[in-house]
Amino acid sequence: MTTLVFGHKSPDTDSTGSPIIWAWYLNQIKGEDAKPVLLGEPNTEAAFMLDHWKLDKPEIISDVAADQPVVIVDTNNPAELPTAINSADIRAIIDHHKLVGGLETKGPIEIRIEPVACTATIMWKMIGDDLAQAPTGIKGAMLSCILSDTLEFRSPTTTQEDKAIAYSLAEDLGVSIPDFAAQMFAAKSNVSAFSDAELLRMDSKEYEIEGTKFRVSVLETTSPKMVLDRKDSLMASMPEVATEDGVHQVLLFVVDILNEEATMLIPNDLTRTVAEKSFGATVTGDTVVLPGIMSRKKQIIPNLKL
Amino acid sequence: MTTLVFGHKSPDTDSTGSPIIWAWYLNQIKGEDAKPVLLGEPNTEAAFMLDHWKLDKPEIISDVAADQPVVIVDTNNPAELPTAINSADIRAIIDHHKLVGGLETKGPIEIRIEPVACTATIMWKMIGDDLAQAPTGIKGAMLSCILSDTLEFRSPTTTQEDKAIAYSLAEDLGVSIPDFAAQMFAAKSNVSAFSDAELLRMDSKEYEIEGTKFRVSVLETTSPKMVLDRKDSLMASMPEVATEDGVHQVLLFVVDILNEEATMLIPNDLTRTVAEKSFGATVTGDTVVLPGIMSRKKQIIPNLKL
Repeated sequence: MTTLVFGHKSPDTDSTGSPIIWAWYLNQIKGEDAKPVLLGEPNTEAAFMLDHWKLDKPEIISDVAADQPVVIVDTNNPAELPTAINSADIRAIIDHHKLVGGLETKGPIEIRIEPVACTATIMWKMIGDDLAQAPTGIKGAMLSCILSDTLEFRSPTTTQEDKAIAYSLAEDLGVSIPDFAAQMFAAKSNVSAFSDAELLRMDSKEYEIEGTKFRVSVLETTSPKMVLDRKDSLMASMPEVATEDGVHQVLLFVVDILNEEATMLIPNDLTRTVAEKSFGATVTGDTVVLPGIMSRKKQIIPNLKL
Repeated sequence: MTTLVFGHKSPDTDSTGSPIIWAWYLNQIKGEDAKPVLLGEPNTEAAFMLDHWKLDKPEIISDVAADQPVVIVDTNNPAELPTAINSADIRAIIDHHKLVGGLETKGPIEIRIEPVACTATIMWKMIGDDLAQAPTGIKGAMLSCILSDTLEFRSPTTTQEDKAIAYSLAEDLGVSIPDFAAQMFAAKSNVSAFSDAELLRMDSKEYEIEGTKFRVSVLETTSPKMVLDRKDSLMASMPEVATEDGVHQVLLFVVDILNEEATMLIPNDLTRTVAEKSFGATVTGDTVVLPGIMSRKKQIIPNLKL
């Protein structure tokens, strides 16, 4: 049976590119039968990556069958995976997020989790010298994943390994990192086609503080104005999205990639309290700028207080 | 703060040796401050390993303080770890068991789980060329762990990697594998000092089938007669151990390492049903021989039926 390789729901560049990279490796190097799939429509940056490197858009699946062989990449969180994930035959997990708990495997399998910025960085290390056999598209996907997850090395999640591997790939591909990253971020920043609810869910993780559930949403953009011009209708959509998703409140952080700061929307007292207690911010209007805040994983989630 | 490195409760050779190996690596190669500890008294084979390679017996701890930096080896199961494990600062996990779920980490950490027979095998690969700097005792501990977990390559959990690494270590150390394994297994088989309850808990994992909880205990020995001569008192002790440990029934498999078979004790109808349904055995008395059964992980647990 073909092994399905996939990342998390609401696929970003790493969750779109890493399955393609790993399925290539399993097929071409390991001689296995593997296929990359997606758990949803890729975001605009991921779509740009597919287009730029002439990669086929993977099929989108909604769930997995029992005993389906799967490889999970870029997450270990059951909430971000198909409902039936624990009935599947999980063959391997490659990830760079904290261990959440909840995934179970039937037997011992290969699990590689490392505290680097990007799944593709770990894959680069695992593939080793065999990468020489990879076509341009696979190397291009790797570079795209690293530049995306590190925000071109601006994110505090960036490690020396991510950086060195990205430089090595760019050299090999003859790509200028600043030019290519600018194209990627422009693609990601083009959010005009999305509804408010789609924007609030596009890059989002649930997090609970003392029994209060939050949807912590981030929009990384080089054009924060494009999002912030819509702040009134975004804030108006928050209660409905929260209710539908079973959380108390949506928190939206608009990350300005180039200026290295985040703007948090403050629709009500609850979000104002969170902004003040978590980031020591002084809130006067319905938005607040948080200088230096770029990473949900390293800077937002660990500091959230109520 | 010193990082504590430990394996599972009721430490066997791999859970005693692997923390020593990894603490050496962190101290001597990575320049960190680390210390191996145990979550209980090592079994007789592990004690033989310490003595043979002149390794200090690690301190035994009963729990971990909040925010204590720890590295977990040879398990990922919270039930086999200190009560406060999820409040500790888990820095890394190196293991070869199935993912159980339940461990959570505060941030992304290094996790390496591979489907090999032994934790030390994974460490050998991670340490790489730096192993040349290891003293004899560290290499000896590695060899001991692999021979123990593979039952000198007889267990079906054995992979080509485990075997190749063991041969390479034995060559380097000038050790005859058959002679050394025989000494280890003789040490493990010397169970005269243990009470029945201690034997039933010595190498044991909980497993639940359709709401019925079992303590699945294995005794690997080259002298099965030494254990089976005590079968009446072992069976008499099972109800009390089961009650104390909150399970319905203890299952005891006496694994004959040299003859590659297990003898299961059959104290009652429940265990007879399990033996018949799980292994297709025909039970006539209060024991039943299961030819070829050596591994709880590969052969016992996956087949258990009620």
